[in-house]
Amino acid sequence: MRISELAAATGVAVATLKYYLREGLLHAGEARGATQADYDATHVRRVRLIRALTGSVGLSLQQARAILDLVDEPGDDLYETLGSAVSALPPPTAEPDPSEPDPLPHARAAMERLGWRVHPTYAGMAQLDRALAAASDAGLPMTDERLDAYGRAMHDIAGFDLERLPGDDPAASVEYTVLGTALYEPVVLALRRLAHHEIAGRMLHPDAD
Amino acid sequence: MRISELAAATGVAVATLKYYLREGLLHAGEARGATQADYDATHVRRVRLIRALTGSVGLSLQQARAILDLVDEPGDDLYETLGSAVSALPPPTAEPDPSEPDPLPHARAAMERLGWRVHPTYAGMAQLDRALAAASDAGLPMTDERLDAYGRAMHDIAGFDLERLPGDDPAASVEYTVLGTALYEPVVLALRRLAHHEIAGRMLHPDAD
Repeated sequence: MRISELAAATGVAVATLKYYLREGLLHAGEARGATQADYDATHVRRVRLIRALTGSVGLSLQQARAILDLVDEPGDDLYETLGSAVSALPPPTAEPDPSEPDPLPHARAAMERLGWRVHPTYAGMAQLDRALAAASDAGLPMTDERLDAYGRAMHDIAGFDLERLPGDDPAASVEYTVLGTALYEPVVLALRRLAHHEIAGRMLHPDAD
Repeated sequence: MRISELAAATGVAVATLKYYLREGLLHAGEARGATQADYDATHVRRVRLIRALTGSVGLSLQQARAILDLVDEPGDDLYETLGSAVSALPPPTAEPDPSEPDPLPHARAAMERLGWRVHPTYAGMAQLDRALAAASDAGLPMTDERLDAYGRAMHDIAGFDLERLPGDDPAASVEYTVLGTALYEPVVLALRRLAHHEIAGRMLHPDAD
């Protein structure tokens, strides 16, 4: 397809597509004479990925580039690559202070409680630590029982997600992991609020039709 | 305690406490002479609530006031009050267009699939619809199987949360619902990322010690 058709297929303006091409975010089409090029399904998919990262996910083009680089060159260790890709997503977290003997005490205790083996410097640890500290400061600390219940539910979801990882295709695995992490997070939170609403209705309005 | 002690107990500056008092967000202390007042544990708790709403939760004072008003006057229908309080939390969602015959098609289909009975105009519906549409636009639509898995996990969490609702104390119920919704959301998302990390480690690095 021509660039105008790629624009129509993706809803992205031709000028923006040309910008992606110049910046090397989008691979060149196959040359058809001096001024035309031919684009295919790989271009459509790539443009959708760029749009998702810079749109719904809310990354700058520079931040998106870090993830696109990992899609393009996933390297030999898929586990490390997936961790790096997810760590490039919001929210930004400060690096833990290495001089601190126990820099993320809430998160570390939570992982011990759950028996999860994670890298102590994985970005999710700083994210969890901050979240647990905020709950505690507000007078609503996570109890062990709540941590068990939440941990079990999240482990169920994560198991479902990873069963569907296209592990024999590293580039597709990075794409799936990044988009699946970022785009399903708002789904998770909306479903939690709706589940509260649904159960509260049955508890507090048991006779409603 | 004196206002300086309330400041020390909550970590909030005296000038800020006086501002809360003037604005009516914080109830007056008991008068002790012409220029002094005595504060107690109810003031500490209220200041913590205001700080959580305007700090971690990220509300403006005006938005926090809407929630504080519901804590102060929960009204007769706790179910309605809890729904209004949660709807006052971020993210803001546009009202569905009432002239549209099916304004939130993704969310409606999801609730039908899950068999959840919810108000079709509850704010969580617009939130879910937008999240499902974004995932779909990015080429990663929620399948029925994924919706089932996520819905089951969120229903488990919500059941745990609502078993602990202090239902005989409406003000405490509003406070618990608002803070528990907002403050545990970042915990949920961090746990999901860590669960992915943990399972990916076992799948991709099975021999690591």
